[in-house]
Amino acid sequence: MVKVGILGVGTVGESVVRILEENADIIEARAGKKIVPTKGVVRDITKKRDIDITLSDNPEELVNDPEIDIIVELMGGVEKPYELTKKALENGKSVVTANKALLAYHRYDLQKAAGGDKRLAFGYEASVAGGIPIIQALKTGLSANHIESISGIMNGTCNYILTKMINEGAEFDATLKEAQELGYAEADPTFDIGGFDAAHKLLILASIAYGIDAKPEDIVIEGIEHINAIDVEFANKFGYEIKLLGMAKKKGDKIELRVHPCMIDENSMIAKIDGVMNGISAVGDKVGETLYYGPGAGGDATASAVIADIIDIVRGNASAMLGYNRPLETDLTLVEPEQIRSKYYLRLLVNDEAGVLAKISETFAKYDISIETMLQKPAGTDMSNLLVATHICKEESINKVMEELFENRNVFAKPSMIRID
Amino acid sequence: MVKVGILGVGTVGESVVRILEENADIIEARAGKKIVPTKGVVRDITKKRDIDITLSDNPEELVNDPEIDIIVELMGGVEKPYELTKKALENGKSVVTANKALLAYHRYDLQKAAGGDKRLAFGYEASVAGGIPIIQALKTGLSANHIESISGIMNGTCNYILTKMINEGAEFDATLKEAQELGYAEADPTFDIGGFDAAHKLLILASIAYGIDAKPEDIVIEGIEHINAIDVEFANKFGYEIKLLGMAKKKGDKIELRVHPCMIDENSMIAKIDGVMNGISAVGDKVGETLYYGPGAGGDATASAVIADIIDIVRGNASAMLGYNRPLETDLTLVEPEQIRSKYYLRLLVNDEAGVLAKISETFAKYDISIETMLQKPAGTDMSNLLVATHICKEESINKVMEELFENRNVFAKPSMIRID
Repeated sequence: MVKVGILGVGTVGESVVRILEENADIIEARAGKKIVPTKGVVRDITKKRDIDITLSDNPEELVNDPEIDIIVELMGGVEKPYELTKKALENGKSVVTANKALLAYHRYDLQKAAGGDKRLAFGYEASVAGGIPIIQALKTGLSANHIESISGIMNGTCNYILTKMINEGAEFDATLKEAQELGYAEADPTFDIGGFDAAHKLLILASIAYGIDAKPEDIVIEGIEHINAIDVEFANKFGYEIKLLGMAKKKGDKIELRVHPCMIDENSMIAKIDGVMNGISAVGDKVGETLYYGPGAGGDATASAVIADIIDIVRGNASAMLGYNRPLETDLTLVEPEQIRSKYYLRLLVNDEAGVLAKISETFAKYDISIETMLQKPAGTDMSNLLVATHICKEESINKVMEELFENRNVFAKPSMIRID
Repeated sequence: MVKVGILGVGTVGESVVRILEENADIIEARAGKKIVPTKGVVRDITKKRDIDITLSDNPEELVNDPEIDIIVELMGGVEKPYELTKKALENGKSVVTANKALLAYHRYDLQKAAGGDKRLAFGYEASVAGGIPIIQALKTGLSANHIESISGIMNGTCNYILTKMINEGAEFDATLKEAQELGYAEADPTFDIGGFDAAHKLLILASIAYGIDAKPEDIVIEGIEHINAIDVEFANKFGYEIKLLGMAKKKGDKIELRVHPCMIDENSMIAKIDGVMNGISAVGDKVGETLYYGPGAGGDATASAVIADIIDIVRGNASAMLGYNRPLETDLTLVEPEQIRSKYYLRLLVNDEAGVLAKISETFAKYDISIETMLQKPAGTDMSNLLVATHICKEESINKVMEELFENRNVFAKPSMIRID
């Protein structure tokens, strides 16, 4: 019998306890041993819960408890769970976590802590894309490949909002409100819609694929707050879907890591992933493109991944946490955001005056950016939305154009930009 | 250093050797040891090959060679590779294979042979859907779940032909010929287009998910040979795509296993998988739907999966071959084909005479099958194609209707049937 202790028994923790009980038979057959959740730690010990395990409010006691074999960390936060999971490893326990923030900051420290003389397993399948086994796909399934790119929908809240905006021509604010009412967005939605959640997940995947040690602060992170119905209409018209993507791209010995809304070909598989679902495409130099699709959140889906890790540990698998035993691709460095090359879509609110278009075109020309498509749409009295799609250029140049246009007296608001991939 | 010997150095085998060399650095970092293909067995030792390993034409020698740690079996066939891989296991070597026919007939024997006192690893990721890590997804990623269904495009040749027929309104024979010219179909295409290849793969997946021991002979296998442009036109008109699917469905303590062409909702993710690509959807009782997409064939994509298994073995992972240590869901039995329930589409070539429609409708009514849609299309002088979609009924009833209609003097050819899912 293997005893599991859970740090943080919330929605996911309760699902873990319930599934270990409901599917005990098949789980025991697959793991080779009975797996029993025996103890849990909660903040509020007085709250009534519908699960049958011993609860305390003392996390240190749990990670030091000699009866516990595997610690499951579901408490959230960064420094406290880092301290506790490290302690659990020191005590010879394996660890499973769903905590992406913990890993976005401490994955290399934890790989080191788990990889001592007696290697311990550290599972984190649930930290990226909920129930989709993308961690094991990168760590094992594609292990013969240099990964050329990872690109995916890693946040269900954003994808739900964008899908709604695309299907219904709705505006962002109204759609966000509806998502909040349906429980698909948090009361404070910043972490999701600002792209930070996706960035944490991207950093975890990029570590497995490339061994690159980056923090959220090091990469481009933009959210979906500035996208409006006009952008969606433009995208539809030109055969694009707008998605919030986490992207890692290897170009020679450089890696681009970025999270931002993106216009992508409506016929690509990623474009077809709608609503709260997640989907991640990984391209290997030998295998070509593979894609993984499924529910990215939810108590049971996340618990399914947590328990998959527990079963793997009980089966005796304890390969290196990030999937390698010595540094991978050590020459790789991050591309400076300004050096990224892409196509760009800009939306400008401009004065409806003779000569304005010429002035604006001049600014693009000045920075050597050629324009692929330009559309003008009336926007109230004497104003127009000018929608511009460029050919490939450097991000540095597009930033300069945007700055300069904002200073143009015929441009009324800060230009809005979406990259085209 | 780990030494690999390859039984059968054809397209996939050459890719394995080449990738182990080209990506040696990253593979060593991930596996923790250098992996070297040292010996291979071929039928024709005199043929010139572009790889640098010692070749012989004696497979027994290779599986008995004490210097070899891992045997990779890529020779094809059933009984000979069974004998050789069993011998390799007896000699304490781990085995990796891409041979779906071997597993369709001997997976339980091999699980037993690999699971002795000292458990040996037996990898077969490459046997289903080439480069897509679907075996590990079912074996580990979804291990906390009862699998409710598996449904997927498991044969790229069929999917290429059907996609072409759908996009271009082309007929089957012309499309098959084109696929053969492009190398997407074999000179003798029966194994692919008859559904047998997909059936082998389905049986492997069903063993991991359900522990059910079925042989190809036990299940419904139908190919795509009888599909024509009229069927495709009907499907388009009513919002369906036609795909050759391998399907496993759990209903209570019964399992349906079947491979056949299927009309499916054009908005489902599976419907969006086009050309030679494969894609498999697996629904778990806790996780919900997950889907895996990628190249299902090709030397490098298949070798990518073979090497992933080798790396996993070198990392020290040797969980039970089919993912369980004691029988899974032992009460499950196969549904008799006649007891399957589905919607059906029938195409009938009929006499263009007054009263024919009434007679045909009577036959459906006699077997209590209600009709959802009926379309009549002229087909030359005095003849029509009658296209009928039914509501859900038993396969037994639809078979009787088809027999009886074939005996009707107004029906000119054997009725053609496609299930609707």
